[in-house]
Amino acid sequence: MSLLAVDIGTSGVRAAAFTDDGLLMAQESTQAALSTPSPGRVETDAEQCLADAVATLGRVVARGVLEDDRPVSLSFSVQGEAILPVDADGRALALAPVSMDRRGRAVVQQVTGGDERRVQELTGQPVHPMFSVYKAAAEGEAWRSREVAGLRCLGDFVAGRLGSRAAIDSTMAARTGGLDVTRGTWAEDLWEAAGVPLGFLPEVVDPGTVVGRLHAQGAAATGLPEGLPIVVGSHDQASSFWGGGGRPGRASVIAFGTSDCLTVGTSSRPQGLTGTGLATYPVAGGWLTLAGTASGGWALDWFAEMAGCASPDERDLLLASAAQDPSPVLVLPYLAGSGTLDNDPAATGAVIGLTLETTRPALARAFLEAAGFELRRIARELRARAVEVGDLWAVGGGAAHAGSLAIRAAAAGHRLAAGQDGGSLRGAALQGAVGAGLHPSLDALPQPQISCSVEPDPRLDEWYSGQAGRYDALYPALKNLDTMTSKENR
Amino acid sequence: MSLLAVDIGTSGVRAAAFTDDGLLMAQESTQAALSTPSPGRVETDAEQCLADAVATLGRVVARGVLEDDRPVSLSFSVQGEAILPVDADGRALALAPVSMDRRGRAVVQQVTGGDERRVQELTGQPVHPMFSVYKAAAEGEAWRSREVAGLRCLGDFVAGRLGSRAAIDSTMAARTGGLDVTRGTWAEDLWEAAGVPLGFLPEVVDPGTVVGRLHAQGAAATGLPEGLPIVVGSHDQASSFWGGGGRPGRASVIAFGTSDCLTVGTSSRPQGLTGTGLATYPVAGGWLTLAGTASGGWALDWFAEMAGCASPDERDLLLASAAQDPSPVLVLPYLAGSGTLDNDPAATGAVIGLTLETTRPALARAFLEAAGFELRRIARELRARAVEVGDLWAVGGGAAHAGSLAIRAAAAGHRLAAGQDGGSLRGAALQGAVGAGLHPSLDALPQPQISCSVEPDPRLDEWYSGQAGRYDALYPALKNLDTMTSKENR
Repeated sequence: MSLLAVDIGTSGVRAAAFTDDGLLMAQESTQAALSTPSPGRVETDAEQCLADAVATLGRVVARGVLEDDRPVSLSFSVQGEAILPVDADGRALALAPVSMDRRGRAVVQQVTGGDERRVQELTGQPVHPMFSVYKAAAEGEAWRSREVAGLRCLGDFVAGRLGSRAAIDSTMAARTGGLDVTRGTWAEDLWEAAGVPLGFLPEVVDPGTVVGRLHAQGAAATGLPEGLPIVVGSHDQASSFWGGGGRPGRASVIAFGTSDCLTVGTSSRPQGLTGTGLATYPVAGGWLTLAGTASGGWALDWFAEMAGCASPDERDLLLASAAQDPSPVLVLPYLAGSGTLDNDPAATGAVIGLTLETTRPALARAFLEAAGFELRRIARELRARAVEVGDLWAVGGGAAHAGSLAIRAAAAGHRLAAGQDGGSLRGAALQGAVGAGLHPSLDALPQPQISCSVEPDPRLDEWYSGQAGRYDALYPALKNLDTMTSKENR
Repeated sequence: MSLLAVDIGTSGVRAAAFTDDGLLMAQESTQAALSTPSPGRVETDAEQCLADAVATLGRVVARGVLEDDRPVSLSFSVQGEAILPVDADGRALALAPVSMDRRGRAVVQQVTGGDERRVQELTGQPVHPMFSVYKAAAEGEAWRSREVAGLRCLGDFVAGRLGSRAAIDSTMAARTGGLDVTRGTWAEDLWEAAGVPLGFLPEVVDPGTVVGRLHAQGAAATGLPEGLPIVVGSHDQASSFWGGGGRPGRASVIAFGTSDCLTVGTSSRPQGLTGTGLATYPVAGGWLTLAGTASGGWALDWFAEMAGCASPDERDLLLASAAQDPSPVLVLPYLAGSGTLDNDPAATGAVIGLTLETTRPALARAFLEAAGFELRRIARELRARAVEVGDLWAVGGGAAHAGSLAIRAAAAGHRLAAGQDGGSLRGAALQGAVGAGLHPSLDALPQPQISCSVEPDPRLDEWYSGQAGRYDALYPALKNLDTMTSKENR
């Protein structure tokens, strides 16, 4: 028996087939093109996402791996925060603004009534214009016209067009910024303040819930069997957590992607998050809490481009040539705003401690170390709130190279293990297995097989502790200087 | 009639012939190789300097331009701070430590007795291990052996081997860190504390003084006429000042070289320099005051190398592609320690305000702007001490490109003019003309012809004022963070 999963990410769609034990059988991907019609607006075409999902699934099916392994579920891992209006047939009526889109900024006060602490306590998410509820409020009447039958996030949009009922899981619902996370129902007053009728929103269900069956047209387009159970899946970070080896109280998952994100599980809701950028949502009887850096892999890409190494191969070579010794250079990787902890979308990046002797390998190492310093800081802030990171599994593109991973581990002061088939697609697939009844619960899923495990060198502990202290002090010092405001925000 | 000049710089020797009006007739150069026998030690071979000076002068003579223009003087522009022991025939007994050499650090206390303010007041130079007196103290008995007949700086060393008596001009003497600048005589107590007999030091004379005549052997080696008057010349920054268009109270000269240095003239000794890195020395009845950045062109070279543009042509292309618009990125160019004002050899460089949208042209502009911000700050600090910069002439390699110069001018908020034949060689040559009696005084020398003049765009005044304020705050903020200490100094 096999499991199918689709990951709808900001940079494109991936689809894969897994065995019911979570071993990868085949994977395909399609890149997405974002549109940036005006400054601060970044949109994706949901209809294109649907077409890409269908075509990419089709390519997985065409690999022939399902012939001996009958598929039992199709489930989703989905980028959060994007939202769009649909008509009665579930067709997109507008492009969907993605995370980086800033249109929601002007209506935050209108939606929250200025009481940000209450809203964070209610929704589990810090108040930030990226969340869907602010985007829907910003669009106003344009998204409430007579044609509009509802609002959808990208996962429920795609699933709906393949045969699912209008349903969204609790983690994706939380990432709209409009879920009452304790009750697990929509936060009525926020949507009302945003001008959105509650009837426009999909039903909230648990991750792993079967929400429909693949209809004939979807089956024909993908080559999958008609009637295949569609499982709701979850937000990409939640999928990465479950797929990457995360287990509440025991192991956490750090996704090194275009952004870096640490996801930590607990049995009860963590306290003391209000007033921070830490976000939490309920899942499978427990809670997941997220913290990260807005530009992880993006900062590495930027560095490679500045160094004249623009192609993926050149970039990998540049990073692989990173210095063996700790770098006296410090990088603050806030090139797309800060991470969760500083929660400052206007923050900018910095490179400190340069001398004429600074080499490209030393700079490469410093860019990699930055991810480790941020991870160390997040773990400490979580610990201060009685949330322990435990073992750490790395997933995402940045987990693929042992050398880069070892540098991050050294700076983080924490062992990092990478799984062979970890990540959000595996998590989505295994949630499908729970939906199909193959596994009793998310907690009982098989762990990924370790492909690489790196340990910080104890001889470097003292150096990295000192350097991490300087890293922590860097953003506050630069913020005070008013050098942190990006051009756009001046 | 023509004038011959030799510039003995850290990176090599240049020689040129000028008309008596200061128009360049021919120029040749030879690169030098520095030796770095151990960390903190950087030396040049004075015998090689002599050989290079002779050979380079010979190539100028071979250009044939002197056939119709009889040479009337040979004079020198010389890097400061380097010093070496010589035997009774003026032959080098050791390599000469240059500016960047740090061997003097350990003996600063011994030489100054800990009273740095008194020493700066006495010598006009801030207490810094780069000065010759500390280097001579550090070498101790090795430079006081029976063979040693005296200590020489590079200019008087080369001139002495060509026929000059042992004489040094007041500006080079000041750059030993051991001249009583008010009296114009050696500071006896400092040399005594350094263990150097005063008899080892050359006679101190005014720039432009005839100190000998080219002997037969020098004439044969260079192709110049025997008996040609040898004129003492001056420290390279003083030569740049007079050659580049500087006039006390009216015009200053900024040399954009591997380091950047602003030289400003006044009729009387500036007050309030004690406790700063500003250095002053007497010349031609007035005073010159120096301030700069340890890595100007070096920082640009470093940036080009990081960007994968290591060859001179690629570097020039990269800088020529600098953005047309002001850069939100700020560069602190302290890659070889700070400039004069912060006076911190352990300072390191920084790049601030980075976003994913930051391009290579924006970075290139930011590296060029840094020189302007530092210039703006120096001018303000000088003004606070009643020293006005006046008109600004740019000389050196960094003055050759109008586009780069315009960016520096915008950041400095000051018009910059570059002369066709400006710079230290022209200044040295014209001091020869004074020695030869062709011009009555340094103040009466002809100005260089303007080849390029760039003005800051008034529409950018406000932006650059704000950015300059952030630039000024950057070093103190980072110093407090303890991120400014280079690896070597940890």
